[in-house]
Amino acid sequence: MRRDDASALDAVDPLRASRDRFVIDDPELIYLDGNSLGRLPRTAMDAIGATVSSEWGAGLVRSWHEWIDLPTRIGDQIAPLVGAKAGEVLVCDQTSVNLYKLATAALVATGRRDIVTDDANFPSDRYILEQVASAAGGQCRVAATHPIRGVQSDDIVAHLDASVGVVSLSHVAYKSGALADMKAISSVADAAGAFTLWDLSHSAGAVPVDLNGSMATLAVGCTYKHLNGGPGAPAFLYVRSDLHDRMRSPIPGWFGHQDLFGFEPEYRPAGGVRRFAAGTPPIVSLRGVEHGVAITTDAGLHAIRAKSIALTDLLIERFDARLGDLGWSLATPRNPEERGSHVAIRHPDAYRVTQALIDRGVVPDFRSPDTIRLGVAALYTTYTEVYDAVEHIADIVQSEAHKEYPETRGAVT
Amino acid sequence: MRRDDASALDAVDPLRASRDRFVIDDPELIYLDGNSLGRLPRTAMDAIGATVSSEWGAGLVRSWHEWIDLPTRIGDQIAPLVGAKAGEVLVCDQTSVNLYKLATAALVATGRRDIVTDDANFPSDRYILEQVASAAGGQCRVAATHPIRGVQSDDIVAHLDASVGVVSLSHVAYKSGALADMKAISSVADAAGAFTLWDLSHSAGAVPVDLNGSMATLAVGCTYKHLNGGPGAPAFLYVRSDLHDRMRSPIPGWFGHQDLFGFEPEYRPAGGVRRFAAGTPPIVSLRGVEHGVAITTDAGLHAIRAKSIALTDLLIERFDARLGDLGWSLATPRNPEERGSHVAIRHPDAYRVTQALIDRGVVPDFRSPDTIRLGVAALYTTYTEVYDAVEHIADIVQSEAHKEYPETRGAVT
Repeated sequence: MRRDDASALDAVDPLRASRDRFVIDDPELIYLDGNSLGRLPRTAMDAIGATVSSEWGAGLVRSWHEWIDLPTRIGDQIAPLVGAKAGEVLVCDQTSVNLYKLATAALVATGRRDIVTDDANFPSDRYILEQVASAAGGQCRVAATHPIRGVQSDDIVAHLDASVGVVSLSHVAYKSGALADMKAISSVADAAGAFTLWDLSHSAGAVPVDLNGSMATLAVGCTYKHLNGGPGAPAFLYVRSDLHDRMRSPIPGWFGHQDLFGFEPEYRPAGGVRRFAAGTPPIVSLRGVEHGVAITTDAGLHAIRAKSIALTDLLIERFDARLGDLGWSLATPRNPEERGSHVAIRHPDAYRVTQALIDRGVVPDFRSPDTIRLGVAALYTTYTEVYDAVEHIADIVQSEAHKEYPETRGAVT
Repeated sequence: MRRDDASALDAVDPLRASRDRFVIDDPELIYLDGNSLGRLPRTAMDAIGATVSSEWGAGLVRSWHEWIDLPTRIGDQIAPLVGAKAGEVLVCDQTSVNLYKLATAALVATGRRDIVTDDANFPSDRYILEQVASAAGGQCRVAATHPIRGVQSDDIVAHLDASVGVVSLSHVAYKSGALADMKAISSVADAAGAFTLWDLSHSAGAVPVDLNGSMATLAVGCTYKHLNGGPGAPAFLYVRSDLHDRMRSPIPGWFGHQDLFGFEPEYRPAGGVRRFAAGTPPIVSLRGVEHGVAITTDAGLHAIRAKSIALTDLLIERFDARLGDLGWSLATPRNPEERGSHVAIRHPDAYRVTQALIDRGVVPDFRSPDTIRLGVAALYTTYTEVYDAVEHIADIVQSEAHKEYPETRGAVT
């Protein structure tokens, strides 16, 4: 593959028009961190402005009729992107809080105390799962997985017994990008009487997810990565509809009450997924969420997935051609069916290279101690950007340009 | 008092300039619901726009260096408004979630299982306190209080024993507006070995609060009422500094980790109040918070309180003059030292009157079944507005204009 070939792919890219729906402030910037924070949809900018000036500024408290249904309405828009039905997805709180609520409720509902996760799961999820299990008098068992290929159903089966109420995993591993077999793992968990609680943060909007078809029980996910909802935008949660009546939120705030404005002395959980809401949603941030969801819906997840695979295939092809001999190793599965929408590469100087890349206008994501994640977003990443990014990495390492930067590893972004 | 007298007070109002710092879209609108949703500060509109276009749109993930300290930085700005020190206040999550976190952590820290609250506390707080006590194997004891004067320390003392780990009350009662004696109640709770957990939602920004001086242990509050932070803007929490090391959040997400971007496999709580953060904050909403805080700080809480008392005094004077003979009763303490910044009035037709008021451009707040709350915000409410609002109520009732509206009680706003 030459650069011209990449440009030719861009010219015939069926998703080319999607890129125009985002604010591209600097067309030269190669942004490969949409898996941390997605780009700004043009309509989100306008809608947030109108929310502030018209709804808050002019409408004031009278605007609640516009806001009250946003958590379920945007949830219904996300539902088909994750294989859920309308009424099963709610936009609320942050991923960590939603994970806490559902894991806690699931242990109560199953009458069990232990949780199984894996060593590739996002550390924040693990902190919370450990705390939830501990508070229930149980343990969080951490399955060891293959460092690149991630978790397999056999890894989980080995930890299942009648004490395990919840199996909670990331659908796409945040570091390696490995894609878990949701159906196989949900099946073994279900057979053991455990609920599954999937973190879709790195798959929602990038990879077709089939929660219903996989008989997945529960899920959470964030909206600010591949769904392009804005920095720290409210997260979502999914509860399979047959479980709504069986589960209760441990944080029963007024927004999850059956009669929202009744202010009754007793808590009566709302019918349906809204019972998992807690307090007043952050409306201005919430207003940003539906725009990226709409662009994703319009593009179609199968087209997004096809381009995402083509982009990560190109990344790996260029990795082999340019970086394999420069001390880099690939930390993401080569089989496209086994990975999500980012590619992780490792090098002892990864932190310094990251700094050099950012100064050249290439934004990847560094993960301590030695990993660079190159995230592709089919809605706006071009083949040429992917091609050029690998050239930059090779050039930096060959020219030793990264040696000007401090070795100290820490927060880059 | 005649209308001219009210206008004369406006002309010499030392806080007159504060009103100009808010967007007043419709100068004819009499907005008496700032205790539900405060007005939009002019600078907030600009700042949110810049956050969306420049920080999210152009800066993308590189803007995290602007965002990472917002929860503690805005917390430090709120701290002096509630009598706390820098480092004791964090802006995060919603009030309900913060109440849950602190109540749960406080029961662990005290090694006790029961919670005391009162029947005037906000129902959402009660739902959560009941759930927290129940999850700990204890009970939430609900003290009966005077329906107008609210909770007194004796009401609480009667419920205190060695099982009570937390006393959680609203500083200003959401319905009657009664102001609790924080110092007296914190003192009796402390003597019984219980933590106090104050909900400052209706007092922060309107009433001087002295958490440190009252030896209050913990507090939560919302930023979208008298602090004018925007609809559903993130809430705040306060933990007395000597307790930071003794307490742990039950929702230990990455944002409360000592090394934020380290993604270590084990959770290490941050030193200080940040350990009570959970997930990624909703940045766009969070960006709206500091502006109302700044206006409040510039005006000064003592000037705000003085005008707030003058406005509620005027409300009550006009109530006596115009509404007392029309079937209305006053549901807020007459002694200004015993109330916050709203006045509650009751009438069997309150719901219909509320609808008629809104159609006349007067926005109060209806609370089922028969209460209208008239909230005054010293930063922007005028004496003339208060005068006119009572005239409108009297005129509606006298002319029976409200009888055109449906009787059904429910959500107004």
